[in-house]
Amino acid sequence: MVIPLRNVAIVGVGHSKFGRRVDTSLPELTWEAIKEALNDAGISQEDIEFVSLGNIGVWSSEVSPGAAILEYSGLIPKEFIRVETACSSGSAAVKAAYMAIASGSADIAMALGAEKMNEVDTPRGVEILARIGNYFWEFENFGPTFVGYYAFFATAYMHKYGATEEDLAKIAVKNHYYASFNPKAHFPKKITIEDAMGSPYIAWPLKLYDCSPISDGAAAVIFASEKIAKKLTDSPVWIRAIEGATATSNHSKRENFLSIPSTRIAAEKAYKRAGIDRNNPVKHIDVVEVHDCFTIAEIIAYEDLGFVRKGEGYKLAREEQTYIGGLIPVNLSGGLKAKGHPIGATGVSMIVELTKQLQQRVEKERQAPIEHGTALAHNVGGTGHYVFVTILSLSKP
Amino acid sequence: MVIPLRNVAIVGVGHSKFGRRVDTSLPELTWEAIKEALNDAGISQEDIEFVSLGNIGVWSSEVSPGAAILEYSGLIPKEFIRVETACSSGSAAVKAAYMAIASGSADIAMALGAEKMNEVDTPRGVEILARIGNYFWEFENFGPTFVGYYAFFATAYMHKYGATEEDLAKIAVKNHYYASFNPKAHFPKKITIEDAMGSPYIAWPLKLYDCSPISDGAAAVIFASEKIAKKLTDSPVWIRAIEGATATSNHSKRENFLSIPSTRIAAEKAYKRAGIDRNNPVKHIDVVEVHDCFTIAEIIAYEDLGFVRKGEGYKLAREEQTYIGGLIPVNLSGGLKAKGHPIGATGVSMIVELTKQLQQRVEKERQAPIEHGTALAHNVGGTGHYVFVTILSLSKP
Repeated sequence: MVIPLRNVAIVGVGHSKFGRRVDTSLPELTWEAIKEALNDAGISQEDIEFVSLGNIGVWSSEVSPGAAILEYSGLIPKEFIRVETACSSGSAAVKAAYMAIASGSADIAMALGAEKMNEVDTPRGVEILARIGNYFWEFENFGPTFVGYYAFFATAYMHKYGATEEDLAKIAVKNHYYASFNPKAHFPKKITIEDAMGSPYIAWPLKLYDCSPISDGAAAVIFASEKIAKKLTDSPVWIRAIEGATATSNHSKRENFLSIPSTRIAAEKAYKRAGIDRNNPVKHIDVVEVHDCFTIAEIIAYEDLGFVRKGEGYKLAREEQTYIGGLIPVNLSGGLKAKGHPIGATGVSMIVELTKQLQQRVEKERQAPIEHGTALAHNVGGTGHYVFVTILSLSKP
Repeated sequence: MVIPLRNVAIVGVGHSKFGRRVDTSLPELTWEAIKEALNDAGISQEDIEFVSLGNIGVWSSEVSPGAAILEYSGLIPKEFIRVETACSSGSAAVKAAYMAIASGSADIAMALGAEKMNEVDTPRGVEILARIGNYFWEFENFGPTFVGYYAFFATAYMHKYGATEEDLAKIAVKNHYYASFNPKAHFPKKITIEDAMGSPYIAWPLKLYDCSPISDGAAAVIFASEKIAKKLTDSPVWIRAIEGATATSNHSKRENFLSIPSTRIAAEKAYKRAGIDRNNPVKHIDVVEVHDCFTIAEIIAYEDLGFVRKGEGYKLAREEQTYIGGLIPVNLSGGLKAKGHPIGATGVSMIVELTKQLQQRVEKERQAPIEHGTALAHNVGGTGHYVFVTILSLSKP
C-alpha cells in the first residue's frame, strides 16, 4: 500500500432537496447543490479545476448529460468526467475528485452526484433498476426486480439467524425518525412500527416501508489540496481513505445471501489505510452512513463493516443501538430509506452529510456527538457489484 | 500547476479487432483486449488494483455493464469505475487509471475502453449518437444527427478558408491507406480519391467516406508506478500529461464553427505540463493520433493543436504533410475513419497505438520514425463537449 503524497480536504458541501423534483431539469437540480457548495467553500466556478459527476444517465433524454450540467452551472471549460458504478456512482465521483487532488492533477476539484429518476415513468424506472442487476442470466431469464434481489438476502438472513420482519421494520422507523429532522429529505416524517408492518408486501418479506424510494436529487462536495484548504477553511474534513471493491452481479455465483463480499473487502482496505482496527472499528468512529437501499441491507452492512459479529446485526436494530447514544449512530440523515435515493447522488450525499456531522452543523435532533472526529460512508452499487467505503476525519492523515 | 509526485508508466497494451463484432458479447470483446494487455505486461488479473472502463453504456442491454465485464475477465473483486465523456470516454478512463497510480491509490491500474455499437440497429444507433449532442435545444427541436453537426464545421471552414471537398477526401484516403496495414482495423483497405469523392452525401459537404463507421471494439492499457514499471519492462512509455477541457454542447453558444475551443485549452494545458513549445509543438513530437470522427475534424485538429496556423490545416491534407515523411505523421493506425470508432474504446485505442509506435513495434509500413520519443493523442467527445490531450514519452518526466 502506497501512502498518498498529497492530503485531500473537503472545503465545501452542497445538497439539493431530495424528492419528486419534477419542478426542475437535471441541470437545474444539480445547480442547487453546486451553488450551495460554492457558497460553503467561498469560491466561484472559476476556481474549480476538475469536475466529476456520479450519474447513471439512462434516465435522461441526453445520453451524455454532463455537458448540459456544466453549461448551466457555468463550469465550461473545466475538465470533466462522468462516472458510473450503479448506486455507488456518487462514491466513484468522490474517488475521482479525490484522485485528481492527490495525484497533483488539480488543486481544487468538485464531485457531483445527480439523478432525476422521475424523468421516466415508474414501470420503466423499475426496469432500468432491474437491468442494473445481471441482465443476461437473471433479468432476461427470470425478470427479478431489485427488491426481489434483496428479498433473497432477507429470506436467507431471517432463516439463518432468526431475525424477524419487525427487526427490518425497526430500521425503517429509525431512518424515518432522523429524516423528520432533515429538511432536505424526500420523506421528512416519522413512521411507526405499525405503519411499516402494515405496508403492502413488494417481494416477501420486504414491504413497501422496507424499500428506499425512487428519488430525484443532487449533491456536491468540493475538495482541495492541503495548501489551498488552509486558505479556504478553518475546519477542513480530510479524506483518510476511499476504497472500492467489486463482486459478481450474477447471483448464482455468490457464495451466499448473508453478506456482501465487496463490502468486507472495501472496508478492510479502508480500515487499513485509515489506521482503524478492523476488529473493533466502532471504537474509532462517531457516525456512519450505510447503504440502506432496503432495510435488510443496513443490517447486513453492520456485520460486513465489522460493527458486530456475523448474524448479530439484527440485534443492533432490535436493541436500537444505532440511534444516537447507542453503540454507533447510523443514517442520521434518514438514509436512503427516508432521505431518498437518487442513485447517482447518494454517494456524494453521504459525504455531504458526514462532513456536516463532523463539523457539528446538522440539525440538533440528529447531530451525533463527535468524540473521535471520524466518520464512515458505505455505498453499494447493485447488490454489491461495486462497493466504496470512505473514512473521513477531522485529523489530517 | 502541481507536478505529480509519482510517475506513471505504461507497461502493457492490448487491442481487439475492431469491426462489426456480432460474433462476441461485450464482455468477450473486452476480454480480447484485456488478455493481450496482461500478456504484454507479463502479469495476471491478480496484480491489477484498479480498473477504469470507458463505455457509453446506452447500447447495452445491461445498464451497468462493468460488473459483467469484470466477472467474465476474472477481475472481481478489483476496484472499478466506469467513465463516460461521450466519444472521449476512453481518454477519461486513461485519466482515471493515471490518477489512480499518480495519487498513490494503486501501483498497477488498467484502463479499458469498450463499445459494442452494433447491439442496436443503425437508426437507433444514429439516434443515440445524436442525443450525445444537445438534446433539449437541438435534437428535440431540429433533429440533427452527428454528421449534421460536423457539416456545420465543414461548411463554415470551406467558406472561410477555401478548402475543398477534395481536401477532405484526402484525409480519408490517407487514413484508409494506413489502416490497410493495420490488421486490427475495421476497414483495412485502401481507397482512392475517386472512391471518396464518388460516395453519397450524408450531410453536405460530408459524404459517406468522410464519416467514421459504427464499430465494435475494445482496448486496454496497463499502467504502473515507476518502481513496479522497472520490474515489468525495459521499455516503459511515460504519461507526460493528460489534460481535459470542455465546451458547450449547445451549438448556438459557440463562437464559430472553425475551431473546437476545448481542444485548444486541453492542448495548451498538456503542452505546458509536458514542457512542449505551444508555438511549435511538432518540433517535439514524432507521431500523433487525432480525433477524425469526420474528415473535417482532423483538419481542424491540426490547427487547434497548433501544428499550423488557423486556416492552414487543409493545406497539410492537400500537400500530404501528415503522411510518414511529412511535417508530422497523423493517424497511422487508420484513425477513427478506417481503424473504426467504437466510441468508448477510441481513447484507449489511441494510447495502445502510440505506445506501440514509440516502442517501434507496429507494422513496418505504418511505423513512424521515432526521433524525439514523444507522441500526442487527441480525443474529442461530441463536437468538443469534452476533449482530452495526452502526451506520451519514452523519457521519464
